Amino acid sequence: MTPRHPSDLRRFGYLGPRGTFTQMALDAWDGARHQEQVPFGSVDAALEALRSAEIDAAMVPIENSVEGGVSATLDALATGDPLVVIGEVLVPVTFVLCARAGMPLSSVRSVGTHSHAWAQVRTWMATHLPDAVYVPTLSTAASAAALGQPGDVMFDAGVCAPVAAANEGLEILAEDIGDNRSAVTRFVLVARPGTLPEPTGADKTTVVLFQRDDHAGGLLELLEQFAVRGVNMTRLESRPTGEAMGSYCFSIDFEGHLQDARVGETLMGLKRVCADVRFLGSYPRADGVRADARVGTADTDFDTARSWLEQLRS
Amino acid sequence: MTPRHPSDLRRFGYLGPRGTFTQMALDAWDGARHQEQVPFGSVDAALEALRSAEIDAAMVPIENSVEGGVSATLDALATGDPLVVIGEVLVPVTFVLCARAGMPLSSVRSVGTHSHAWAQVRTWMATHLPDAVYVPTLSTAASAAALGQPGDVMFDAGVCAPVAAANEGLEILAEDIGDNRSAVTRFVLVARPGTLPEPTGADKTTVVLFQRDDHAGGLLELLEQFAVRGVNMTRLESRPTGEAMGSYCFSIDFEGHLQDARVGETLMGLKRVCADVRFLGSYPRADGVRADARVGTADTDFDTARSWLEQLRS
Amino acid sequence: MTPRHPSDLRRFGYLGPRGTFTQMALDAWDGARHQEQVPFGSVDAALEALRSAEIDAAMVPIENSVEGGVSATLDALATGDPLVVIGEVLVPVTFVLCARAGMPLSSVRSVGTHSHAWAQVRTWMATHLPDAVYVPTLSTAASAAALGQPGDVMFDAGVCAPVAAANEGLEILAEDIGDNRSAVTRFVLVARPGTLPEPTGADKTTVVLFQRDDHAGGLLELLEQFAVRGVNMTRLESRPTGEAMGSYCFSIDFEGHLQDARVGETLMGLKRVCADVRFLGSYPRADGVRADARVGTADTDFDTARSWLEQLRS
Amino acid sequence: MTPRHPSDLRRFGYLGPRGTFTQMALDAWDGARHQEQVPFGSVDAALEALRSAEIDAAMVPIENSVEGGVSATLDALATGDPLVVIGEVLVPVTFVLCARAGMPLSSVRSVGTHSHAWAQVRTWMATHLPDAVYVPTLSTAASAAALGQPGDVMFDAGVCAPVAAANEGLEILAEDIGDNRSAVTRFVLVARPGTLPEPTGADKTTVVLFQRDDHAGGLLELLEQFAVRGVNMTRLESRPTGEAMGSYCFSIDFEGHLQDARVGETLMGLKRVCADVRFLGSYPRADGVRADARVGTADTDFDTARSWLEQLRS
Repeated sequence: MTPRHPSDLRRFGYLGPRGTFTQMALDAWDGARHQEQVPFGSVDAALEALRSAEIDAAMVPIENSVEGGVSATLDALATGDPLVVIGEVLVPVTFVLCARAGMPLSSVRSVGTHSHAWAQVRTWMATHLPDAVYVPTLSTAASAAALGQPGDVMFDAGVCAPVAAANEGLEILAEDIGDNRSAVTRFVLVARPGTLPEPTGADKTTVVLFQRDDHAGGLLELLEQFAVRGVNMTRLESRPTGEAMGSYCFSIDFEGHLQDARVGETLMGLKRVCADVRFLGSYPRADGVRADARVGTADTDFDTARSWLEQLRS
Repeated sequence: MTPRHPSDLRRFGYLGPRGTFTQMALDAWDGARHQEQVPFGSVDAALEALRSAEIDAAMVPIENSVEGGVSATLDALATGDPLVVIGEVLVPVTFVLCARAGMPLSSVRSVGTHSHAWAQVRTWMATHLPDAVYVPTLSTAASAAALGQPGDVMFDAGVCAPVAAANEGLEILAEDIGDNRSAVTRFVLVARPGTLPEPTGADKTTVVLFQRDDHAGGLLELLEQFAVRGVNMTRLESRPTGEAMGSYCFSIDFEGHLQDARVGETLMGLKRVCADVRFLGSYPRADGVRADARVGTADTDFDTARSWLEQLRS
Repeated sequence: MTPRHPSDLRRFGYLGPRGTFTQMALDAWDGARHQEQVPFGSVDAALEALRSAEIDAAMVPIENSVEGGVSATLDALATGDPLVVIGEVLVPVTFVLCARAGMPLSSVRSVGTHSHAWAQVRTWMATHLPDAVYVPTLSTAASAAALGQPGDVMFDAGVCAPVAAANEGLEILAEDIGDNRSAVTRFVLVARPGTLPEPTGADKTTVVLFQRDDHAGGLLELLEQFAVRGVNMTRLESRPTGEAMGSYCFSIDFEGHLQDARVGETLMGLKRVCADVRFLGSYPRADGVRADARVGTADTDFDTARSWLEQLRS
Repeated sequence: MTPRHPSDLRRFGYLGPRGTFTQMALDAWDGARHQEQVPFGSVDAALEALRSAEIDAAMVPIENSVEGGVSATLDALATGDPLVVIGEVLVPVTFVLCARAGMPLSSVRSVGTHSHAWAQVRTWMATHLPDAVYVPTLSTAASAAALGQPGDVMFDAGVCAPVAAANEGLEILAEDIGDNRSAVTRFVLVARPGTLPEPTGADKTTVVLFQRDDHAGGLLELLEQFAVRGVNMTRLESRPTGEAMGSYCFSIDFEGHLQDARVGETLMGLKRVCADVRFLGSYPRADGVRADARVGTADTDFDTARSWLEQLRS
């Protein structure tokens, strides 16, 4: 199969509805600007549509600087038919408290939003609405949508992105109410295997590692496969494999591209010592930071070493 | 402060409402049987009540064999006034689909439950109720409670523990619908510092490690502090510190008790190389598995080595 | 250059004179039995004759179970035009005290032998000839030769191999006088590059590693290149490079053959992180012990991993 | 036993005879200047005299920047009754070729010297006296002494330190004939246990490590005991234990003093994982270079960590 270029993608799915931070991430992706954009009700639904070729790519959240890894995405990528990440987008997370016209802050008795968003505004709520009842919704945008439609609603105010409140014509009762003003969510653009972005020198690679057995020091051994080849990790999360309490796989991002020699040897090393290694893509870093290759780990160092070995063996 | 004994505890809080798996965990704790039990609406609320001495201990979920770490608990323990884990309980997780009398499975159009439970019955739902709309609730027991009360409800059926359905007098439409039949949730009993269970030989210790800086190989260095002293980890989770994308702390369980010599030296080593180490308790393992101490890491080995050193120095 | 087979060798040099343990080692080498054997006065001289193609191979001592590495050999292999080890021989070391006919033990006032041999009979001498003066000779056989020839000699008795005493027709005053009865010397057969024995499954490889700079933890890094690929070391010696006090190179034997995949990757890894790596040959182990390959380090594991990587990259 | 101060030493032994580099080392030791100085015929003899309290200290060579470790010294310190190093001296090694008056360079047919010295002038000899026969002597000074006395001698010229040639009134045929002009020999002043120099901040410690068993990765484990506590090695030599081929102990120098916290914990760690650890002294470095303590490894870091642990445990 000839690898497809990321610029060949036509239909983009995303975790909807409209007005979520995920849509903001998709809007920030150049290649998606004038293409078809399809909202899905869950990460699972978006990725299934991608697997069945209903769409060409899906934008989904993977990591939040406050709440941590997005389990649904991590798990959906770690299992099922293979998918690969082909890009990432960082979106600052800003929350507003919004309500229907005429509802003053002092009258708010209940607040609807997604549980992750609720977790990120706890401090503000404890100060300004200590007695408000929390009502979970399927997404932050869903809380705005419920208020935006006529008829009964289960809560007086919603917590969502500014764009969602604007979309629904709601009033803003308070802006920037997140407990952490520098909160950022990282989104990844996922595609089917066969789409591999070119190396840029500032790349990341994502894998999931399944340990051969759960022996002491197992993780240490895996990390040494990276360290001995000068490959730096930028994210590590353990996720249960679901088989038994204490049985984990590791979701890992690291610097470098599949085509880099040190990445190739690291992946082969992991493949040999792990029960399984799932490659989840190499893609340009959103922050453009170039890898700081340790002495002896550049492609030319690997080439020189291989020529030397071949000469010894001949 | 004289350490209090776990048997001195009188008032127990837990993540409510009644009928949750957390209450089942508390029921399984011998010392809580004939004591006062107080439900709280969130992990945060239970732990705040504990910090303010309103209760003496709180039972909260910390890790699910399918869904992974419970972020709310991990984060609430990692920050704020110090608390310590003094015991753990493992509870098998079994879900039922329940409804009001007279509602056949074929008529169910919407299902309410907690988002974590929904994630664990995805496969069953895709097979038996592919078109059902999901409605998030605050807990699994809350879905049963809503159905158990008269009046309007937002969904036709709920997903909860068998005990919750029984408490509310609901009909069981399907039993054991979890995708993973061996799912287990691990709960921890948390108290204020000053309560330290005796070492039993089959103990665990929980810590949170904050790295000094985010340098390459940083986690490897931390893990070597364990490895060089023969201490085995049983859980590792990275959690964002909230300060910036890619800034993590590590929540770690390992074998052994604060009073064990190898644990003491490991903790001191971590304290020296980390920006901060938060001790979250030593307590008997629920499974009673005794640590398999590597040669040279028993308390007597440490004593012998110390005597030898003191003799050299004198 | 087509590799020559070890069986093509015709002229064998060795560290002479006749009657040394080195000649015993050469006699134990099947391929040398009916070939020309040339003694040399020093390891340097033998290896220089090999480099200038005056001989085809040279048998020299490299390691003694009592005295350690043989510096002259280690250093001569580590520098100058490249040479390779193509085989090894283990020879038990047994010393006799010998003298001209008519000299009783009680009359011995001075003893001649090589300084290494003297070091290995210290205890016997302290007990039986506490007042004897030591006279250094160029080799153990040289002490026998001096006594075997007519005329003045600087010492009353010699310490040498039984065969040397027999060659010279000397009387044996005491047998097996070595302090360590299980002493063994390891000899290596050295040839010019281009002679590479076939892998047997029970092979050793010898290298010299020159560190890039003398930074802390440098040796640890080198050893991790072996460990991460499951390659076991059987000998490690540091040798000064002669450049400055504290500047070392490392002479290392390890299990496996140049053609083994895990050895190839280890050598390339060392080549990348070292200032220089000198390959000194792969050859069958004298003891025939087969390497105990760790899970994931067999050639087939490397092949599988490479196929997987190539598929990912295509 | 109250530790004795190095300044209490009265009788100094050294590897004689007069005129060796060892005497030059002793002359460079302030505390020995106006004290009794006793030459011994071998390192063993000097150290035995020290063990039997015949002398208070002994100056012996331990490491040469060209030839490597001095086996006799390393082995004599590693076995027998314990001794400790209390100081070190670095002496530049300069060789002269000397002869009796009237012997021109062109007439020299044979050269006497110690085998280590002969190894260090090989290049000069190959150029200027390619046909000279080598005659081993017990020391470099012994070659000068033989020429300095009337009567027959086995060689025409000697290789020794300038001071030895001057002592004997010999003529200098060539100066500074060492192949390596920056050659240095390191000498150590050895005493009985109970003499421990004060920490200076620029100290070294010497130990011998005996592995528990000869398992793969054994050395790596030992080195990790140093690395994890930020202790840098400055010398590592493997020495055969004499028990079997491939059975080694490790002679190691590292930065820091027995009284340093990180050194104490490292020594205890080694004691626990090794079959045996032999402490061979802590003493000021001859070059005065202060240890570059890694973050978290200063004494105050250890004190802070210990206080923290004790508070947790109480």
